[in-house]
Parts: sequence; structure tokens; C-alpha cells
Amino acid sequence: MRILILGGDGYLGWPQSLYLSSKGHDVTIFDNLSRRHFDLERGFNSLIPIQTLHERVSVWNEVSGRQIQVCIGDTMDYEALASVFRDVLPEAVIHFAEQRSAPFSMIDRKHAVFTQTNNVVGTLNVLYAIKEFAPDCHLVKLGTMGEYGTPNIDIEEGFIEIHHKGRSDILPYPKQPGSFYHLSKTHDSHNITFCCKIWGLRATDLNQGVVYGVETGETTQDARLATRFDYDQIYGTALNRFCAQAAVGYPLSVYGKGQQIRGYINLLDTIRCIELAIASPPREGEYRVFNQITEQFSLIELAEMVVRHSQRFGLEAEVKYLPNPRVEAEQHYYNAAHTRLIELGLEPHLLNGSVLEALIRLAINYRDQIDRNLIVPTVNWRMTKNEITQADNSRSSINFSRE
Amino acid sequence: MRILILGGDGYLGWPQSLYLSSKGHDVTIFDNLSRRHFDLERGFNSLIPIQTLHERVSVWNEVSGRQIQVCIGDTMDYEALASVFRDVLPEAVIHFAEQRSAPFSMIDRKHAVFTQTNNVVGTLNVLYAIKEFAPDCHLVKLGTMGEYGTPNIDIEEGFIEIHHKGRSDILPYPKQPGSFYHLSKTHDSHNITFCCKIWGLRATDLNQGVVYGVETGETTQDARLATRFDYDQIYGTALNRFCAQAAVGYPLSVYGKGQQIRGYINLLDTIRCIELAIASPPREGEYRVFNQITEQFSLIELAEMVVRHSQRFGLEAEVKYLPNPRVEAEQHYYNAAHTRLIELGLEPHLLNGSVLEALIRLAINYRDQIDRNLIVPTVNWRMTKNEITQADNSRSSINFSRE
Repeated sequence: MRILILGGDGYLGWPQSLYLSSKGHDVTIFDNLSRRHFDLERGFNSLIPIQTLHERVSVWNEVSGRQIQVCIGDTMDYEALASVFRDVLPEAVIHFAEQRSAPFSMIDRKHAVFTQTNNVVGTLNVLYAIKEFAPDCHLVKLGTMGEYGTPNIDIEEGFIEIHHKGRSDILPYPKQPGSFYHLSKTHDSHNITFCCKIWGLRATDLNQGVVYGVETGETTQDARLATRFDYDQIYGTALNRFCAQAAVGYPLSVYGKGQQIRGYINLLDTIRCIELAIASPPREGEYRVFNQITEQFSLIELAEMVVRHSQRFGLEAEVKYLPNPRVEAEQHYYNAAHTRLIELGLEPHLLNGSVLEALIRLAINYRDQIDRNLIVPTVNWRMTKNEITQADNSRSSINFSRE
Repeated sequence: MRILILGGDGYLGWPQSLYLSSKGHDVTIFDNLSRRHFDLERGFNSLIPIQTLHERVSVWNEVSGRQIQVCIGDTMDYEALASVFRDVLPEAVIHFAEQRSAPFSMIDRKHAVFTQTNNVVGTLNVLYAIKEFAPDCHLVKLGTMGEYGTPNIDIEEGFIEIHHKGRSDILPYPKQPGSFYHLSKTHDSHNITFCCKIWGLRATDLNQGVVYGVETGETTQDARLATRFDYDQIYGTALNRFCAQAAVGYPLSVYGKGQQIRGYINLLDTIRCIELAIASPPREGEYRVFNQITEQFSLIELAEMVVRHSQRFGLEAEVKYLPNPRVEAEQHYYNAAHTRLIELGLEPHLLNGSVLEALIRLAINYRDQIDRNLIVPTVNWRMTKNEITQADNSRSSINFSRE
């Protein structure tokens, strides 16, 4: 299948591109390298060293004999997007090309505006490009479970049947997103729904949980195929941060009461989910939503798991509760449906001891590169202007020299 | 009260400004004149001649002795917005400053992107400006009933109590907006909800129906205080279009089956609703929604009312069904709650014969100015590129000479 992967150079986009290429699909990556640009600007870096996109693709060709096409471009640039659509005539488009950090979107007004403009307009451009150049193409869009917030009823997959005053209807599930980033994904969902309705587009919106893990069957074939591992306050997930903190003997920072429950998924399952979605496309005009998670945990459960498994490495991690920089319910009901991908054939890889230990081992291997300054949360949802810590200069120059 | 009116030069913003000024409030208008710019660009014009903003304000001063401050600026320009906030320190901000036409947003990609960027980013800027310079200020935001779409259950005012699998919660009412414009308002609603939550802002989101009428107690004090009357396919409502068509002996164009039901409100009630909202502000952190309508009609009911009342003027209007340029349900359930403004004291002015006849009389008075080309719908929701008819040149030059 001809597959266009927007944002194919990112944490998820890259292993997804490799996986689909390994399955014989004809993969083209379209990426503006913005994630790398942010690192360069701030002195951040992936804890695992990663290669440039061109190098990665050439290593993959060496290792597998397969060719991934690369096009450097921005979804905000419609001419560039139209041109890659005309060249590729994709049968499926996987859209990872969004600013994907909640804290980034909460830094200040400019970051909020950038996030919403980039994500909403980028996705509008993708929708127009599909309609104009590949109207039968299946859009697979990465959404987030964070669109739902934490309602006091079960979370369903995109839609809910509501009985009200003697009548009923199946309506879009109400959204209560918790950052300007999560809001941008909610806006996208509404825009995509509408374009399926008016233009007959086919779309799968994958409301993904927090992804963990870095290794796939493809990335492990050569160290130069590795995908990124972020532990900083802007791009690092809580789990990655906990592993990094455990590795350097720093208390595990739990925000607020730690009873915040979220859905999680292994990277291996994420890439498989997208393959499953592509293999069974929606019908013309259909907008469907899958909740792309396999388990749910509270923050404190995760922290305690990391404490427990760190002991295997002789580490004595401890948990420290920080005032919550976010505005969110810290104790709430949470039960999110996630059966549709299972029905399509997903066999989940759960967050067990060996997965956790692999992550902790990784953090230990690279512990000299961990910059403690980058973990401290400085982006407070209650403020309109926040400073982000810069990487310690000497460290960031070491990091730079590795690329 | 110090009141800042964003978009105070528009169809609604202007009579609103006059009304609140007449009540002794200290009114400042902030407007980028974009609605007038569109007219200049396309050769469109208000059927009723309107004066420039500076002229209007000076006539108002002459007539009433009251002063309205004017600041020409764009909500997309944060420095300009911040500056007016710092100068005025508003106690209430009324936000009309959005691109407000559904067909405009559906012309092509650039108009869709402009509408969403302008409305979403403009509103984000307003939210930041409130938080930074006037955090106690009450935001009164014009939303639209079109955010709800046409669900098969009763439409409530912003929120709905959902019972689901033995649990319940009060959640944001699900949104099914029907154009890129309506979508932009839905995005705004989500963004505003969030800012109330994280920053403790106070906001009233007025989901307004279709407004009709042009005369208020203030605009009639001098012909130079008139507000606009649009009948064209881009900015004209169906009712205005029907009146213009009846006046020139052109069939009344009903889109599709004509069973599309919408909520309506008289201009006199609109300006009163906003006064009522301001008089009873929400508490800190509260986001509340009022459905700002007083009645609901189907399109065909409206057309038939215009046919009936045109007879008084010796006109023999007839109805013509056109293929629907929009993608919408043409036969559907519709029952929208609208009690909260009544509870605050609204006494509705309904769409009766004398109101209709006043509108038809107006169209007859200016019938020489009506350009039939501008009424024909050329913006089709199913297409990604549409041409808008330009005004007939000779007519538009006549129109220009009136200003």
C-alpha cells in the first residue's frame, strides 16, 4: 500500500515507518523536523542517541534492502503538502505531524497559539489535500485520550448513546481536554468529523494513551535505527521521567495526589494498532474513533512500580509529591473502553516487570547524559508566562557532539 | 460599567454599543473593520446605507451627548489588544470580533483557514489579555446555536446530564457544527471552558440563533446611526434574502427540502440579552452557556410568512426550491431549551406580522440597490473551491458613491 507518514521522524512516526516498510508497504515520510529544532533551540536531546533522518533511512535501506522516501516539509505549507500528495497518491495517510506536548502548549501565549494554529491548520490542510488529490485515501489521525478528560461516567470510543427526556441519539462523546495541546486535538476531531460528512472522506481517529517503550523488531536491528527517549519536563512522559529519576538517584516527582489515572499503551502495540486500522479502512464518509490504550494506571501506581523494579538494579528510589503544576482532577473515576482494536486483532503487550526493567536499564546506561534541571516542572498551568529551564550548557554541548 | 466591545462596528456590535452607551455605560469599540473591507473587496454593500465608524460615533455624541471610544485594531494583534485592555481595564468584554459567515468559511481552503485562525487565535488572545490585564472582567462571547447541529434529542443550554451504565455526570453538550465557521465557534467554546477552569475567568457563551431586524431605540434616532442589512449569499440570512427577493419579484430560494429548523431572535432581544448577561455575571471560574433564541422556525415556514406578508405590498412572491448547497439534515427533530435568559428577565419580541412587514418595506424602499447576482448561492459545501459572484459593476459603483 502507498502510505504517507506525516511526522515520520518523531518518537512514534519513525518506528511506525520502519514497521510498515518492513511489511512491504511503500512508505513516504513527510516531516518538518520541528521536534529536532526544539532540541537544538533549548539544548534538550533524546537520551538515546538518534541519527539524522537521512542517515536513518539509509541505514534502513542497508539493513533491510527497503527504501523509505523522505520529503522535508511542513503541513502548514499547503503547496509542499499538495506536492507530496500528488507525487505519492497515498492510499493511507498517517498523521503524527502535530505539536504533541501539553506543557509546551502551556508555556505562554505564543506557544499556545503556535500549538493550536500548527495542529488545527496543519490538519485542515491535510483534509483539503486528501479531498483534492486522494479522495479515497484513508486518514489515520493520532488523537489523544486526553480529549475526554476525566468524566464521571465510562469513556466510550468516540461516540455515546444518550437517552434524554424520552428520546435518544448517538452523539460525539463530550470532550473536556486539559491543555491547549489537548484542546487542539479536540478541534481536529471536530474538523475531521465534518470533512467526512461533507466530502465523504474516510478517517480513523486514534485516541491514544500515553505510549511507553523504545524498542521494536526494526529499531533493534541496528543501533542507528533507534527512536528517541525523552525524559524532560516538556516532552518526557511521567514514566520516562520516573525511570530517569530512579537512574540518577533523584526522587520520583509525582504531581499532586498522584491518583490521576490515564490509559497506557506499549510502543509495539501502537505500531500494530495503526497497521490494523489501515488493514480495515472505514467506509466512504465514515469517521470512526478507537481508544488506543491497553491498560490504565494511576500516577502513583506507576511510580511505585518503578521504585520496586529499580531495586533489581540496586537503586533505592523514593517518591516525592510535588505541588501539581497542572490543573486537573487528582482523584477521579476513570474507565475507558478499548475493545475496537482488540476486535481487529490487537494482542496487547502489557506493562510488566521486564518492560519496566528494560526502561530503567536504558536510563541507567545513559545516566551520565541525564540533566536533572530538565526534569523539574517549571510550566505551571495557572500562569500565562512560564520559563523553561535550559539544559546545563556543558551537558548540552556534550549532547550536541554526539550527533 | 467599563465595557469593551470587540467587533463593535458590525451588524450586532454597533446597535449593542449604542444601547449600552445609552444606558450610561462607558463603552469602547475595538474593531478591525474587516466586514467593511470584505464589502470593498467584492463590491457588496449593506442595503441600508451605513456611515463610517468615526462618523457614527460622532453622530451618536451629537444626538445623545454620550461618548463612545473607538480603537481600530485586530484581535489577532496581541499588542493592540493588550494596549486597549490596559487603557480601558474593562469590567466586561463583549466579543463579536469573529468572521461570522458560514458560506464565507466554505469558499475554499484559504477562507476556511482564515476563519478558524482568526476566530480561534483571536479568542485565545482575548482570553490571555483578560487574564493578564483584567482577570475579574466578565467575557461575554457570541457563540452560535449552530454548534449543536441537529441532534435527535432536546438541545440543552451548554451542558447535559448523562446517565450511562449506572453512573452519571453533567458534561458539555456534544457538538455537531455544520461549517468551518460553526466549527471555529465550537473550538472557541472548548478553549473558553478551559481558561475558566485554569485561570478562574468568568465567561458567558451566548449560543445565539439567527438574528433578524435592524431598528433599535437608538439606531432610529438618526438615519446616520443605522446598522447594516445584508441580503447576499455570504452574509445575508435566509430571512433577509427572502425579503429582498420578494421586493424585486424574484422567487424565494429555499435550500433543499426547507424543513431545516433553526432558532431565531429579534435584534432588540439580542441587545437586551447581553445587557442581562452583564448585569448578572458568572462567579469566578464559571463558564456558563445561554441559548440566545426566542422561537424556532423551519426555512419553509419563514418563506411562507414572507410570501403572505408581501401581499400587503401588492407583491406576489413565490417559493422556489434549490438544490441545497449545504450538507445538512433537511428533515429533523429540533427542540432547543432557551429559558435561562427568560429567567434573567428577557421579554421576547416575537417574529410577528409587523416585524416582517417592516423588513419587507425596508427591502422595497431600497429595491433599486438589490443586486440579484449576489443572492444566488454559489458556495457549495461539497466543493473545495468555489467562486463568489462579484457585484454587478455599475450597481456597486452606485453603492460606493453613497458612502
